[in-house]
Amino acid sequence: MSDTFIYLCEHSKQQIMSERPLILLTNDDGVSAKGLKELTEVMRLFGNVVVVAPDRHMSGMSNAITVDLPIRVTKTVDEVGFQVYKCTGTPVDCIKLAIHQLLDGPPDFIVSGINHGANTSISVVYSGTMGGALEGCIHNIPSIGFSLNDYDPEADFSRAKIYVARIFQQVAENGLPPFVCLNVNIPKGEIKGIQVCRQTTGKWVEEFDKRTDPHKRDYFWMAGYFENQEENVKGTDVNALETGHVSVVPVSADMTCYQTVESMKDWRF
Amino acid sequence: MSDTFIYLCEHSKQQIMSERPLILLTNDDGVSAKGLKELTEVMRLFGNVVVVAPDRHMSGMSNAITVDLPIRVTKTVDEVGFQVYKCTGTPVDCIKLAIHQLLDGPPDFIVSGINHGANTSISVVYSGTMGGALEGCIHNIPSIGFSLNDYDPEADFSRAKIYVARIFQQVAENGLPPFVCLNVNIPKGEIKGIQVCRQTTGKWVEEFDKRTDPHKRDYFWMAGYFENQEENVKGTDVNALETGHVSVVPVSADMTCYQTVESMKDWRF
Repeated sequence: MSDTFIYLCEHSKQQIMSERPLILLTNDDGVSAKGLKELTEVMRLFGNVVVVAPDRHMSGMSNAITVDLPIRVTKTVDEVGFQVYKCTGTPVDCIKLAIHQLLDGPPDFIVSGINHGANTSISVVYSGTMGGALEGCIHNIPSIGFSLNDYDPEADFSRAKIYVARIFQQVAENGLPPFVCLNVNIPKGEIKGIQVCRQTTGKWVEEFDKRTDPHKRDYFWMAGYFENQEENVKGTDVNALETGHVSVVPVSADMTCYQTVESMKDWRF
Repeated sequence: MSDTFIYLCEHSKQQIMSERPLILLTNDDGVSAKGLKELTEVMRLFGNVVVVAPDRHMSGMSNAITVDLPIRVTKTVDEVGFQVYKCTGTPVDCIKLAIHQLLDGPPDFIVSGINHGANTSISVVYSGTMGGALEGCIHNIPSIGFSLNDYDPEADFSRAKIYVARIFQQVAENGLPPFVCLNVNIPKGEIKGIQVCRQTTGKWVEEFDKRTDPHKRDYFWMAGYFENQEENVKGTDVNALETGHVSVVPVSADMTCYQTVESMKDWRF
C-alpha cells in the first residue's frame, strides 16, 4: 500500500479511537478470496481483526442460515490481534457463530467483502456479502458491506481500499442507526467521489440455459442480465457506479412498506 | 373443506375474476409439505394452479439463488388447470425458473406457503417462504407469503385456509404496489381477526449447541430464541399474532433507509 494510504489510515485511527476496536470480517467469496485479504489489510490498520468466513464460494446466499446441518469451524490463523476462522456455513452463519460463540463479546464493527462484483440495486436481496452486513446491524453493530464492480478473482483493489478506509472512518465517527447497515459499491478504475444514494429499481431477467447431461436428463444453469428500470437517474446506486462514483446506500433490516400499511387501511377484509 | 368455505371462495371468485387466473405457488418446506397441499386446495378454487417447489426442506434459505450448481426440475402432476413441478433449487430459483422457463407467460399471482411456523419480525429476512413472495413482487406480480404459527408437520390448517382465501381475495381486488408483497402470519387455534401491521423490532439470539462427532471433531447446531424488542406493542406483527390476530405486513423489496440517506448528508467523506 502507498505511504499516503497508510498515513490516511493511521491519521483516522488516531482521530477516532482511543483503543483498538474489534472488527469482525466476513465475505461470500470464501475465506481465501483476494477481496477479503485486501479488506483484512485495511481493517488491521484500524483495529484488531477476526475473520470468520465461509470455506468456499457462497455467492447468492442472501441472508440464508443453516438450520438442518451441523456447522464446522476451523481456526487457521491465531496471532495477537488477528485471527482467522473458516466455516462451513453461510456468511450469516459466520456472523452469528462469531458473535455468540467464537468471540468473547460483540465486535465493535462488522465489515463484509470486498466482494468480487457489484451488489447494486435489487442484488442487495440476493447478496451473501450484504447478508453478512445485515446480520451485523440486526445485532446493533455498525456494519458495512463492500463490493468492487469487477468479477475478476485477481481484480485490482488498490483504489478501492482508499475508499474502504474513508467510509469505515466515517462510520466509526458518526455511527449508524440500529437495524441499518451500509451497502457500498466501488467502481472499477478511476473513482470520482462518493455518493450517498438509494437502491435502483430494477430486476434480474433470467435466461436459463437448458442442457442435457450424459444420462439424457435435462438441467438448467441460471444466467441472465440486469434490467435497470431507472436508467441514468441521479441519486440511484447504479447511476453513481456508472458515472464513476462510489455508491453508499443505507439498507434497512425493517422491510415494512409503511406507505402500503397506510393505503391498506381501506381494505375490507 | 366446509360448505361455507367453498361458498365463500366461489362467491369471491365470481366477484373478482372474469376468467380463471394463473396462480403460481411455492414454499420452503418442500413440495410434499402439508402446508403447500392445503394452500393448493384453496388456490385451485380461485384459478389454475402451477406449483413449483423445492424437492426438499429449504427453511432459512431467504432470497438465496443457485449460482454455481445446475438446477433440475421434474413435472410430477400434469392435469388440466393444475401442474406440479419439484425442483432442486431454492424457493427463489423455483419462482425464477417458473416465470422465465416453465410457464408460457407471467402468472397473475404468486403465493408462497403455507409455512409450518411463523415468519414474523426479523424472520422475514431469513425466510425462504418470504424469499419466494419477494421474488414475485420484484417481477411486479401480486405476491403473498403465508405462514401458520405451528411447526407441527401435521398442523391443522382448517381455520387458516379461510383467512388465506379472504386475504387472497383482497389482494386480487385491490392489487399491490410494485416491489411490495405481503407477509401474512396466522395464529394457531382461535382467530380473532386480521391486523395490517409493521415488522416487529427483534432478533434471534443464537445458542449454538457445541458437540463432538465420533471422529473427535467439534461441530455446532444452530439453536436459539427470539428476543422481542417491542413486547406488547400494538401495531406490530408479533403482537397481532400473540393476541390471536392474523398479521399482514406489506414488505418492500426496496431496502433503502431513506431517513438515513437524509441524515448522511452531513457526513464529510
